[in-house]
Amino acid sequence: MNDPANPPLRRRDLLSLIGAAAGGAAMYQAMTSLGFAAESPYRGPIKLEGDPKGASVVILGAGLAGMTAAFELRRVGYKVELLEYNARPGGRNWTIRGGDTYTELGGATQHCMFDDGLYLNPGPWRIPYHHHAILDYCRRFGVALEPFIQLNHNAYLHATTAFDSKPQRIREIKADFEGSIAELLAKASRQGALDETVSKEDQEILLEALRSFGALDDDFRYKAGDMSAAFRGYARDPGGGLAAEPLNSQPTQLHDLLTSRLWRDLQNFSLYDFQPTMFQPVGGMGRIGEAFARQIPNGIRYGSKVTAIQQDERGVTVTFEDLNHGAIVQETKADWCVCTLPLSILSELPINVSVSMKAAIDAVPYASVVKTGLQFRRRFWEEDERIFGGISYTNLPIRQIAYPSSGFNSGGKGVLLGGYTWGGPNSYELTAMTPGDRIRLAVKCGAQIHSRYASEFETGVSVAWHRVPFTLGCAGEWTDATRRAHYDNLCQIDGRIVLAGEHASYIPAWQEGAILSALDAITRLHRRILASR
Amino acid sequence: MNDPANPPLRRRDLLSLIGAAAGGAAMYQAMTSLGFAAESPYRGPIKLEGDPKGASVVILGAGLAGMTAAFELRRVGYKVELLEYNARPGGRNWTIRGGDTYTELGGATQHCMFDDGLYLNPGPWRIPYHHHAILDYCRRFGVALEPFIQLNHNAYLHATTAFDSKPQRIREIKADFEGSIAELLAKASRQGALDETVSKEDQEILLEALRSFGALDDDFRYKAGDMSAAFRGYARDPGGGLAAEPLNSQPTQLHDLLTSRLWRDLQNFSLYDFQPTMFQPVGGMGRIGEAFARQIPNGIRYGSKVTAIQQDERGVTVTFEDLNHGAIVQETKADWCVCTLPLSILSELPINVSVSMKAAIDAVPYASVVKTGLQFRRRFWEEDERIFGGISYTNLPIRQIAYPSSGFNSGGKGVLLGGYTWGGPNSYELTAMTPGDRIRLAVKCGAQIHSRYASEFETGVSVAWHRVPFTLGCAGEWTDATRRAHYDNLCQIDGRIVLAGEHASYIPAWQEGAILSALDAITRLHRRILASR
Repeated sequence: MNDPANPPLRRRDLLSLIGAAAGGAAMYQAMTSLGFAAESPYRGPIKLEGDPKGASVVILGAGLAGMTAAFELRRVGYKVELLEYNARPGGRNWTIRGGDTYTELGGATQHCMFDDGLYLNPGPWRIPYHHHAILDYCRRFGVALEPFIQLNHNAYLHATTAFDSKPQRIREIKADFEGSIAELLAKASRQGALDETVSKEDQEILLEALRSFGALDDDFRYKAGDMSAAFRGYARDPGGGLAAEPLNSQPTQLHDLLTSRLWRDLQNFSLYDFQPTMFQPVGGMGRIGEAFARQIPNGIRYGSKVTAIQQDERGVTVTFEDLNHGAIVQETKADWCVCTLPLSILSELPINVSVSMKAAIDAVPYASVVKTGLQFRRRFWEEDERIFGGISYTNLPIRQIAYPSSGFNSGGKGVLLGGYTWGGPNSYELTAMTPGDRIRLAVKCGAQIHSRYASEFETGVSVAWHRVPFTLGCAGEWTDATRRAHYDNLCQIDGRIVLAGEHASYIPAWQEGAILSALDAITRLHRRILASR
Repeated sequence: MNDPANPPLRRRDLLSLIGAAAGGAAMYQAMTSLGFAAESPYRGPIKLEGDPKGASVVILGAGLAGMTAAFELRRVGYKVELLEYNARPGGRNWTIRGGDTYTELGGATQHCMFDDGLYLNPGPWRIPYHHHAILDYCRRFGVALEPFIQLNHNAYLHATTAFDSKPQRIREIKADFEGSIAELLAKASRQGALDETVSKEDQEILLEALRSFGALDDDFRYKAGDMSAAFRGYARDPGGGLAAEPLNSQPTQLHDLLTSRLWRDLQNFSLYDFQPTMFQPVGGMGRIGEAFARQIPNGIRYGSKVTAIQQDERGVTVTFEDLNHGAIVQETKADWCVCTLPLSILSELPINVSVSMKAAIDAVPYASVVKTGLQFRRRFWEEDERIFGGISYTNLPIRQIAYPSSGFNSGGKGVLLGGYTWGGPNSYELTAMTPGDRIRLAVKCGAQIHSRYASEFETGVSVAWHRVPFTLGCAGEWTDATRRAHYDNLCQIDGRIVLAGEHASYIPAWQEGAILSALDAITRLHRRILASR
């Protein structure tokens, strides 16, 4: 045991001391030399060592966390039982395809009528390049990936309150915003306003940089001309042969640009979590859950609805209803338990853990999220509007329209994400509607952005996550305060039980968080088990 | 004929008048109402009408311009003969695969040793979303496309003169540059430096926008913290379970950022020509040329080296060497000629056209470009450095390293573009080298950016376009002055001859320019032929 009155200096503490004394740059140097910089929490395939000698583990939930735990614990020799509520693996890793049926809380059943090969990912739908763990499992389990297009300069930014509700191409808003701030800063520099902050020499370079970045002309102006058109696009594109000269386009006025608030959406293309290159599995996100399940042959007991988790000094007893056999109540026992049930579900179940863990389980609300997939008889967004993948943002309740990142330029039908509403009043309003009404609203909203929407629409499917029986919400919503009070308590091994899932991570709502959480939980559990002999 | 003394007001002239009188915004309104705005020069499949009544056309060069002309003229009923120097279709649309052999001027022959499925596109390698004509032909001819990753935030910017020659992640330079200029402009605004230019109300919104865009903190500072890390990335990424808190990273100092000059490369991700979404054909750019050729069955006479083009009032006679039969000299005659030979070649041939067209043919130099493909036994850029597609830029002679946009995350071997040098002294130095020396230099340069480069390298292939026998350069390099003096003369129908190709377009060096040029040329030629009866 450490002496709490005189704890050993942890690496992180050392860095804080260096940071306080010498500033950030020194801290960064120190970090680098301590091997801390650019460190990923995933270091390649986990290597658990030591014989579990027949110990058994019951794992609750066959989402990515539960299946990661099952796969890795089996490999090192544990007897593993994995209980899953659904009739399929994956949990929130889920793809709805034509022929699928889904019944939400409230009783509405949807029969998905999508054509072959078309789908909606109601849950996760994209993978950042820095989510090393899930990428590594995809590689090892043979899940083919293709690029997910997050930033398409030709998609739209739209607000009913701006530009007479006319959608603006992202390239135009982005180039005009960057050009305008570059022009303003160049002017400030030339008027001496930066002289106290930036040396004269650096300001000379800054002016060059602003011209290059902001498409400024020789006078450091951002205005209609060859420079701005080379960034924002043309009124008429250059052509071939005679009469082929391009016609430059007219930038948006700064006042219109600012008051439109469309600049708010630009950060969706810069944030670390959304930066290209992003990925999606070929054929739908559910391919990952299916691939995990194939690695745990005969290891998943589907249709098992957990109703109670009880532990004592000898083991853990899980009570569940067998939904395949008239919801008959059954029990299973194991030495240890890895529970990956969402806290929204777990908080409603009897479980005898410490007061602090129970408080943590009860402390995290779940996000309200609604996603709607729409099938159209023609990929008019590509054919008429030249939008190949990417996302249009809007202030309408649908919030986003995301165009498919596969089947590009091939004609035929397509399914796009016709709404993705995360939190806020709109998500609750949508959740209160029937699936049919949500789909109708999505079509009505989309028609304000795409004129061919209503006439080309065929069929849709909609998932409101607060109505999803196996999660009652989309993902755990931590605040700084709840993290401080509860996160570490949530992640402790409590007797014979340890929790895992995206909720037990610093990457909430991402599959990477679920996997990293599971790897951390089973690493600690295995160590505990070996030490407990 | 129009009366030259009193020409009808052309639409473009009207716009100029409106622009001069009322300013840009009014001009844009007028443009929109005249149906001019956002106009593409490509309006869907060409519809030539009227019977050519057995007229014949000889087309020179089976690149995309020549094959477009051949395909469309055949469809409307012309007798078409298409002569091609190479033993394959496509011209600069070209993919070098394992097993291919290529002999450059100077006599060096390369036998490409790439593994199956790996390739180099020595010429065009990416297709912008706004190149409507080539995308449309790809769709109609069944060429499968996949995204070409131009912007990967995790690729590098590198200069031997900056950061001790250590490559910087694009996300870091981009976020730090944008954050720094946002902070400077916010400061200028708060100090009143913008008061003469921007209203107080708009400055309030501007501050919000700068915070959102530039990852500024509550005090409008860009510095180490949760905000900047959410854009530039972390020193340690967030994880799962215990001890999973992320560690923020330290932004680059403004002075270092500016003097590094790495900001120069950021515009490669904003320019209209390089904006995502971009595409590449699955399996190599050459798939397009192959698809075109399949649409002209038995229509291409390969191995035909044109040596003279002569016209009179009755027709055109083309003299060529049949390279398949001992370079025996042959002649072919046709009523008309569409010549798509590069000007670098054509300017060396006897051709009896007008003085003004001949002057135009002689006026355009061809770009010096060198591309080198390198095969590695392991995709270390993905496995070790988490770079999936995209381009790293450097001031080394190789200029760029572009990572493959296919086969992501699947392990195994890979071919990357190990150098792409366009113009400047470096391109001439590289052209002067043997292919082997170019490849060795590319490996040596790349090793300054990727530590595993030398040890994982297997084999390479290199193309210096000034040594390519069928083009003697990469693409026509127009200046504003040469365009003014010669472009329209180049594009006229001269007697029975009309030229086409990227050189006869406002989209030089792009395949779209070649196709649009051909469509314009044959449209005018067909009209002339019908009118000449």
